[in-house]
Amino acid sequence: MFEIKNICKDTSARVGIFKTRHYGFTTPCFMPVGTNGAVKTLSSKELEEIGYEIILSNTYHLYLKPGEEIIKSFKGLHNFMNWQRAILTDSGGYQVFSLSPLRKIKKDGVEFKSHIDGSKHFFTPESVIRFQKILGSDIAMVLDVCPPYPCSYEEADKAVELTNDWAKKSIEIAKESGVTVFAIVQGSIYPDLRKKSAEFLVNLDFDGYAIGGLGIGEPKEEMWKMVEIVNEILPKDKPRYLMGIGKPEDFIEGIKLGVDMFDCVVPTRNARNGTLYTEKGKILVRREIYKKDQNPPDESCHCFTCKNYSLAYLRHLSNINEILGLRLNTIHNLTYYFHLINKIRKAIINQNVLSFTAEFYKNYSS
Amino acid sequence: MFEIKNICKDTSARVGIFKTRHYGFTTPCFMPVGTNGAVKTLSSKELEEIGYEIILSNTYHLYLKPGEEIIKSFKGLHNFMNWQRAILTDSGGYQVFSLSPLRKIKKDGVEFKSHIDGSKHFFTPESVIRFQKILGSDIAMVLDVCPPYPCSYEEADKAVELTNDWAKKSIEIAKESGVTVFAIVQGSIYPDLRKKSAEFLVNLDFDGYAIGGLGIGEPKEEMWKMVEIVNEILPKDKPRYLMGIGKPEDFIEGIKLGVDMFDCVVPTRNARNGTLYTEKGKILVRREIYKKDQNPPDESCHCFTCKNYSLAYLRHLSNINEILGLRLNTIHNLTYYFHLINKIRKAIINQNVLSFTAEFYKNYSS
Repeated sequence: MFEIKNICKDTSARVGIFKTRHYGFTTPCFMPVGTNGAVKTLSSKELEEIGYEIILSNTYHLYLKPGEEIIKSFKGLHNFMNWQRAILTDSGGYQVFSLSPLRKIKKDGVEFKSHIDGSKHFFTPESVIRFQKILGSDIAMVLDVCPPYPCSYEEADKAVELTNDWAKKSIEIAKESGVTVFAIVQGSIYPDLRKKSAEFLVNLDFDGYAIGGLGIGEPKEEMWKMVEIVNEILPKDKPRYLMGIGKPEDFIEGIKLGVDMFDCVVPTRNARNGTLYTEKGKILVRREIYKKDQNPPDESCHCFTCKNYSLAYLRHLSNINEILGLRLNTIHNLTYYFHLINKIRKAIINQNVLSFTAEFYKNYSS
Repeated sequence: MFEIKNICKDTSARVGIFKTRHYGFTTPCFMPVGTNGAVKTLSSKELEEIGYEIILSNTYHLYLKPGEEIIKSFKGLHNFMNWQRAILTDSGGYQVFSLSPLRKIKKDGVEFKSHIDGSKHFFTPESVIRFQKILGSDIAMVLDVCPPYPCSYEEADKAVELTNDWAKKSIEIAKESGVTVFAIVQGSIYPDLRKKSAEFLVNLDFDGYAIGGLGIGEPKEEMWKMVEIVNEILPKDKPRYLMGIGKPEDFIEGIKLGVDMFDCVVPTRNARNGTLYTEKGKILVRREIYKKDQNPPDESCHCFTCKNYSLAYLRHLSNINEILGLRLNTIHNLTYYFHLINKIRKAIINQNVLSFTAEFYKNYSS
């Protein structure tokens, strides 16, 4: 399913195509986050127009709202939200850890309370795969145990053990039911636990491998160290997905270490807070200096926002709390992200990743 | 500037074209409300795609934010918001009355406090025309005194006197500075005051005439009675604009009485509250009965929303408070409004206004 097209001579970066049941997408790629069946403020058509081939959605949220019954009646999430390209769904492991007011990890799964109404639910490795099949996910994720940062070695080890145990159950039911599924490597910032986790999962022969439990407060060096350790173990012929990362500079670093897929709320959430990404770095649209600025946020950008609107107008929309501004900012940031990844892909193909990296950092101030 | 193309044989309805300095639009028409330089949730391109030729914006809001200096640097509102078709701007008379925490009406103008920061300001008939020239409004409105409902005969009479006095000052400065300007007929629900107001203003030879101070709580019969009385006095060869109205059924009634232009926040505000207009009447997207409904809100509608999304998905977006839902609902309602007016236009051209009216009420439950 994963075909590697180009390999960087200087780094572990590569360009590939991952073919899911019904749609193929090019890697490296960024997946905009459509938590609850919508990438906030945008229509599916706008995402297509930017060029996205795959988005991420969340089992946890979709399970609570709209729920299984409604998704079933639409024969899956693609029809429900009218997005016909690929969808990867997170398993809910991370959301149970980050959103639920209560969670009890048991041998067979995790009990949690809904952050919406406090109702109790129980996820098992099997139930989340089954639900992701109902969603029609192109790529399902296994249920994992995602410990916080910092966490003790013992706690991290227990999380790895249970995640591994659940992974085994997940791959079995996924194979039975014809679901494409990725495993999730845990292990906090403990190298031997990361290795243990990765080695165990590789033996189970998943369709792809995610690195989870990072970007939750640990120092950046630690994060990249873990990615490096894990990627040395993960098979070269399977896609690698670094969950919940990142910022523009993270793509450069991650891709050089052999990461193929990313997702993050940063471009969309920051857009709604009035932070725009440009070739030169971040800008805050609310700033007084833009009040008469007739230029678009980024002159080199060809997005709908930059082609049609000025910084001064975006600043005005932000000042009057106008929803249109949230959307225009989101379109811009997701366009910036899409094209940044695209440029890195081209650099891999053209064998100039190192000079591209140098050029990027020269222009970009984070 | 106003060319009447078709006159209904059975009612006072007519179809015309009003040519402003830089853009012509067909009447009868509805103007979406872009209070502060944006029709909430929508881009200018979306408004164009629906077919709108003219939108309304507000002097009061634009004067406070972004303010004169910024609008000037863009050479007007059209460039600032990237809308190249016609803009009518309200004078601020109504907003000072409805939004300001304090207003003092004086002989020369009105003192008010900003609803944003409490700062004091003074509008004169001359200053609002001058500001509307800076905005580049295709149609400016005179500053008027808009009394509440109910109000005494004496109060209404005083408002008419002052509005008339200000209208005289307004037409003088408008003519001097080459601004297209409409007068506003006041007089509450007192027939003789409405006549007095209309007769006085007609003599000043404005480019068009608005009927103000209605739709603010008075019974509907009273409103239509006033419109009828006023329209008998207003010149046939000038456009008539019924301010702040209306609901779908109001177009039918207003147009039959010879009204050419309307504006109202109803389609956009209701959209954001989850109320959609359809051929059969209003529907509330949040209703449980739509939870698996795969149909669009209105099967006869060709808007972006109805072509791409189901009622169940719109209900879901409403349940999760997703901004995309506000936009999809707004697109639908403004499309419904645009096509309703379009159908009335066609009925006038085809001389079947009465049968169209009967058909409309047969299908539509308000």
